[in-house]
Amino acid sequence: MEEEQLERLLRGQERALGRAISLVEDRADGQRELMQQVHPYTGRAQVIGITGSPGAGKSSLVNRLVRVWRGAGEKVAVVAVDPTSPFSGGALLGDRIRMHDHDADQGVFIRSMGTRGSLGGLSEACQDTVRLLDAGGFDRIIIETVGVGQSELDIMKAADTVALVLYPSGGDIIQAFKAGIMEIADVFIINKADLPGVPQLRRELEDLLHLTNAPVTRRIVETISTDGTGAGEAVEALEAHHAAIRDSGEKEARRLRRLDADVRRRVMEQVEADIEPLLQEQLQQKQSGDPYDISEAVYRAYQARTSGRST
Amino acid sequence: MEEEQLERLLRGQERALGRAISLVEDRADGQRELMQQVHPYTGRAQVIGITGSPGAGKSSLVNRLVRVWRGAGEKVAVVAVDPTSPFSGGALLGDRIRMHDHDADQGVFIRSMGTRGSLGGLSEACQDTVRLLDAGGFDRIIIETVGVGQSELDIMKAADTVALVLYPSGGDIIQAFKAGIMEIADVFIINKADLPGVPQLRRELEDLLHLTNAPVTRRIVETISTDGTGAGEAVEALEAHHAAIRDSGEKEARRLRRLDADVRRRVMEQVEADIEPLLQEQLQQKQSGDPYDISEAVYRAYQARTSGRST
Repeated sequence: MEEEQLERLLRGQERALGRAISLVEDRADGQRELMQQVHPYTGRAQVIGITGSPGAGKSSLVNRLVRVWRGAGEKVAVVAVDPTSPFSGGALLGDRIRMHDHDADQGVFIRSMGTRGSLGGLSEACQDTVRLLDAGGFDRIIIETVGVGQSELDIMKAADTVALVLYPSGGDIIQAFKAGIMEIADVFIINKADLPGVPQLRRELEDLLHLTNAPVTRRIVETISTDGTGAGEAVEALEAHHAAIRDSGEKEARRLRRLDADVRRRVMEQVEADIEPLLQEQLQQKQSGDPYDISEAVYRAYQARTSGRST
Repeated sequence: MEEEQLERLLRGQERALGRAISLVEDRADGQRELMQQVHPYTGRAQVIGITGSPGAGKSSLVNRLVRVWRGAGEKVAVVAVDPTSPFSGGALLGDRIRMHDHDADQGVFIRSMGTRGSLGGLSEACQDTVRLLDAGGFDRIIIETVGVGQSELDIMKAADTVALVLYPSGGDIIQAFKAGIMEIADVFIINKADLPGVPQLRRELEDLLHLTNAPVTRRIVETISTDGTGAGEAVEALEAHHAAIRDSGEKEARRLRRLDADVRRRVMEQVEADIEPLLQEQLQQKQSGDPYDISEAVYRAYQARTSGRST
């Protein structure tokens, strides 16, 4: 990316950011160079993952959080991820409504992101987008997902702080538990707290948290996103978690774990591409063979090829 | 495995099979040798995956199918997979009840299988178990899962024929659609067909199947597993699918795709283990680096190491 564009991006200018995000979404030429350029400017923002069943009221809750942070003068970005939608770019209905809410506010950036080929591709594009927004000077970057499943779990790994949004009689707690979200959530937000069933949900949650041996620091807050009740407390819980992991070194440890996973994936993708022709050759030759024998043959062929090449 | 044990296994003897399955579940010594020994005896059975939301009545339906096949003199095995349970070995309540149903019937083998570390581990153990049962002479091997999610999708890939069990007003159709089960299901069984809402469910299903461009051969059958209604028709649909894919060469194509995935996974696991120390070394040196640079360094180091070793 040329100097001038990069500077605009680093100042958080909407159009420059939008273009850069499209670039990483499309895995277009220049994407890698761009990510290398912004790398030194990343690491400052709090990345917050917000997940929960459809119907939990995540979008309006996010809206409330954005207002609280904007009121405190912070810059906020929202990346709304829908692994089941093929659409990207902020054109979704929910986003247009929300955009309207924060109209003409330069301190808010909202972008929606749909499936990009594979789930791995989406998760990667999402991570890169977060890095771009981080470099763009946003203080809080919210990744919001549509549901609680395996895909969402994968996406949540890019976050410093994960909030699970539940609601009374939603019945989504078991699903979140099954998907493994329970284990990684740091803050639990009981939304629609004006509905009956809040004490039961809270109890159920506490039982489950106990079951999974959670650190006692994980907080449960109650919100009503239709009137804004509890939004301040939710923000406080999210910020407290961020402060705690920053001070304890856990934030840095998480970053290193992400770096490990990221590097590992890239190397393995490259190796798999190298191995592909050898794999096809062996499979052709040994169609009725045992998988153990064939994989050993492929592995040996790969070792031989790599060493053969450099001599 | 010693000759005598292997012969017992190939005759479908329950204790020999149980032990062999425990061996592959534990990834214990001798597992690989065992799988190589049974390999020549596999490929005969029809492997049927049965999936659907909890509450769809899968277990009692499976019971009905087993009875129909037993009545026709066929040997049937059921592997009940629960990715959310840590238990294995056929000790689950539901299985004990079912076991009782087919008590002392040497032509029926039932085994439950829980999480084995990772999902990948479970899926692999499940595939090996199916191969063992196939070698043991079972004509129909049913893999039954507890729910419809990403994990179940992965497990279903071991099947020749996938049946999705739905029930009126279950609301699980959308979840199955999201998890990608809709695309891979070959037979759709509307269970509890005595409940109201069957025509609507059938219509909804037909609409969705149309949406996903399904081949018209995919059949919808209605069953009532409490009294056995439709079990014969379901068996017929499952057998018809098997005959069709065998004749068209699709069964063999699926086997080759599975072999490809299996071999690929094994090779990649081996390579990843090789790369591990190089990865750790580079990550140590370049903690604040860009993931692209680090992954390139790891890749280059791996290439250099492999070629260095053989010279």
